[in-house]
Amino acid sequence: MQQDFYAVIPAGGSGTRLWPLSRTGNPKFLHALTGTSNSLLQATFERLAGLVSAERIYVVTGGTHANSVTEQLPELPARNLVVEPSPRDSCAAITLATGIIAQRTPGAIVGSFAADHLIDDTAAFHDVVLRAVDGARQGRLMTIGITPTRPETGYGYLECDSLAATDIQNVLTFREKPSLDVATEYVKSGQYLWNAGMFVWRSDVYLDQLAQRRPDVADPVRQIVAAWDSPDRDSVLNAVWPIVPKVAVEYAVMEPASLDGLVSTVPGDFGWSDIGDFETVGALLGRDEAGVTVVGGDDGQVISLDSDGVVVVPSKDRLVALLDVHDLIVIDTPDAVVVCRRDRAQDVKKLTELLRERGRTHHI
Amino acid sequence: MQQDFYAVIPAGGSGTRLWPLSRTGNPKFLHALTGTSNSLLQATFERLAGLVSAERIYVVTGGTHANSVTEQLPELPARNLVVEPSPRDSCAAITLATGIIAQRTPGAIVGSFAADHLIDDTAAFHDVVLRAVDGARQGRLMTIGITPTRPETGYGYLECDSLAATDIQNVLTFREKPSLDVATEYVKSGQYLWNAGMFVWRSDVYLDQLAQRRPDVADPVRQIVAAWDSPDRDSVLNAVWPIVPKVAVEYAVMEPASLDGLVSTVPGDFGWSDIGDFETVGALLGRDEAGVTVVGGDDGQVISLDSDGVVVVPSKDRLVALLDVHDLIVIDTPDAVVVCRRDRAQDVKKLTELLRERGRTHHI
Repeated sequence: MQQDFYAVIPAGGSGTRLWPLSRTGNPKFLHALTGTSNSLLQATFERLAGLVSAERIYVVTGGTHANSVTEQLPELPARNLVVEPSPRDSCAAITLATGIIAQRTPGAIVGSFAADHLIDDTAAFHDVVLRAVDGARQGRLMTIGITPTRPETGYGYLECDSLAATDIQNVLTFREKPSLDVATEYVKSGQYLWNAGMFVWRSDVYLDQLAQRRPDVADPVRQIVAAWDSPDRDSVLNAVWPIVPKVAVEYAVMEPASLDGLVSTVPGDFGWSDIGDFETVGALLGRDEAGVTVVGGDDGQVISLDSDGVVVVPSKDRLVALLDVHDLIVIDTPDAVVVCRRDRAQDVKKLTELLRERGRTHHI
Repeated sequence: MQQDFYAVIPAGGSGTRLWPLSRTGNPKFLHALTGTSNSLLQATFERLAGLVSAERIYVVTGGTHANSVTEQLPELPARNLVVEPSPRDSCAAITLATGIIAQRTPGAIVGSFAADHLIDDTAAFHDVVLRAVDGARQGRLMTIGITPTRPETGYGYLECDSLAATDIQNVLTFREKPSLDVATEYVKSGQYLWNAGMFVWRSDVYLDQLAQRRPDVADPVRQIVAAWDSPDRDSVLNAVWPIVPKVAVEYAVMEPASLDGLVSTVPGDFGWSDIGDFETVGALLGRDEAGVTVVGGDDGQVISLDSDGVVVVPSKDRLVALLDVHDLIVIDTPDAVVVCRRDRAQDVKKLTELLRERGRTHHI
């Protein structure tokens, strides 16, 4: 065990591509989308709890989800829950948690792991994280890169020096989500990894880099951190948090630092996926003999006849019946049902935009 | 007004092809499927009330639907509600009502009109019924035949002598639901009408025919009728009703009587349709600009993107959202949602059979 290693789980984002299951008030990470009864957040916590004790796991989340988080994670120590007054993107969230940990344990190594990713092979994941901790200990800003299994256009990529199995590699630069042609080139070249948005760093190294590159983020967060373990926490947090710029940690720190040669990666191969939409969910789970994939809920809630390639997300105690339909996604919730062509799953968020235009925000 | 003409509405059948909207406990005729807020039963009652006073309209229905019927038809006199202890098919239901009417008004003319049919042109319907009453008065067993507009294979046909516009025609025989080839022949020949299951007869003529042809039906029903307007009604009804054979009035009386030259018809052309399934429902209503037909409910309950040819039956206060789906039927109810290929609408009942096999009868 690495006694100075802490894990942060930023649990934010509403996941509109998983609407109507995922909502502003009931986001993706709180849902069981893995074929077990564990939510994505619970699965993430359990996975990390095999690597660090619960006392060294922090969760950063929004005020509207704090109760759900503590309910789902009874083992999480109350002092390790960081509640944001409003969402201010990943850099603010991760910096606040890193700052609090560093104040409590100077020089701590901090890893950040999204609350809503799936990982098949926990042992391989632990192994990769520990290698990243080694790299972080040497002062590198570490990312965990995923060996690509297909020319995926939905992920960002890390361009590396060269890729030799499981060694620590220098990251030359971050690449945005590519076109299919470019993604195919990337995968063929053997020089690219998927950016899984998992980072490990020494807290002092990260906070230094941020202070140099984005003092507009670093300064207000430092002020909040200084007041965190004092009676002034809430007053300072509520006063200062709203002025923290909204920016992703990749843009604020990791990409510019990679161009300065400060970022490394450990290639990982542990069955990672970012559940972006219901098509991903369906592809991850198998089909039953009737050609239907039931996500969460109970198989008995779905009956189908002459149907194939249908992903069904049933709602508690409601029946979904299918007759001669194919390659669809059916998402049932207590107040809305969506029927979507399977290859349009990522556009479910467009339905939420349409609802917003019509002022029907209670469904979003 | 024909003071001796009475109308009977047999309100039975659960309509499993309209599952899950139509259920054993909440059958087709109680639902608004016409684009108005009127149920099919209410529309049938209103249509007949334009022809005969409410005091001369009878409804025959099952015990589990009696409360819904009286709630939907506040104008129906209580003494005109005939409640069957159990469903015993159309011959028992129509004979019981005819017998009660004949006992109260000897020699009355009785017409029977299903509770769940749609008719566009009420004035034309009234005209045809009055012609049928004329035929009945002359001692004929009258049917109302519908001039076919297409080679429909879902209806039975009446084979006639010859067809001259709106005259009363002799019916040579009843023909079962034909194959498409045969139906095409029928329509081309000009000798066939659709059997709409609407009959008009003098009560004494009908009851005589039944007594000759099916004493096993006539005798027990006569016993019940004799006790109907007495304190013994319920005890006799409950004792005798279970032994009445289950048979359709077509098979018991009309078909054999047609072979003996006793049946005539008035060809009708008033936009009739038997709402068999949701495809019929969808075809009857238009599409909105987004290519979606909303049956009942509120158009605002459905949002769609890049979708076409979808019939949606929404449930109260629930949203149905469609994304790039085509030629589907989506039926939403409080405890079940069905997604069905449009041209398989008539097979929705197979889903109910599947549920029955699995013992999930609470959904049927």
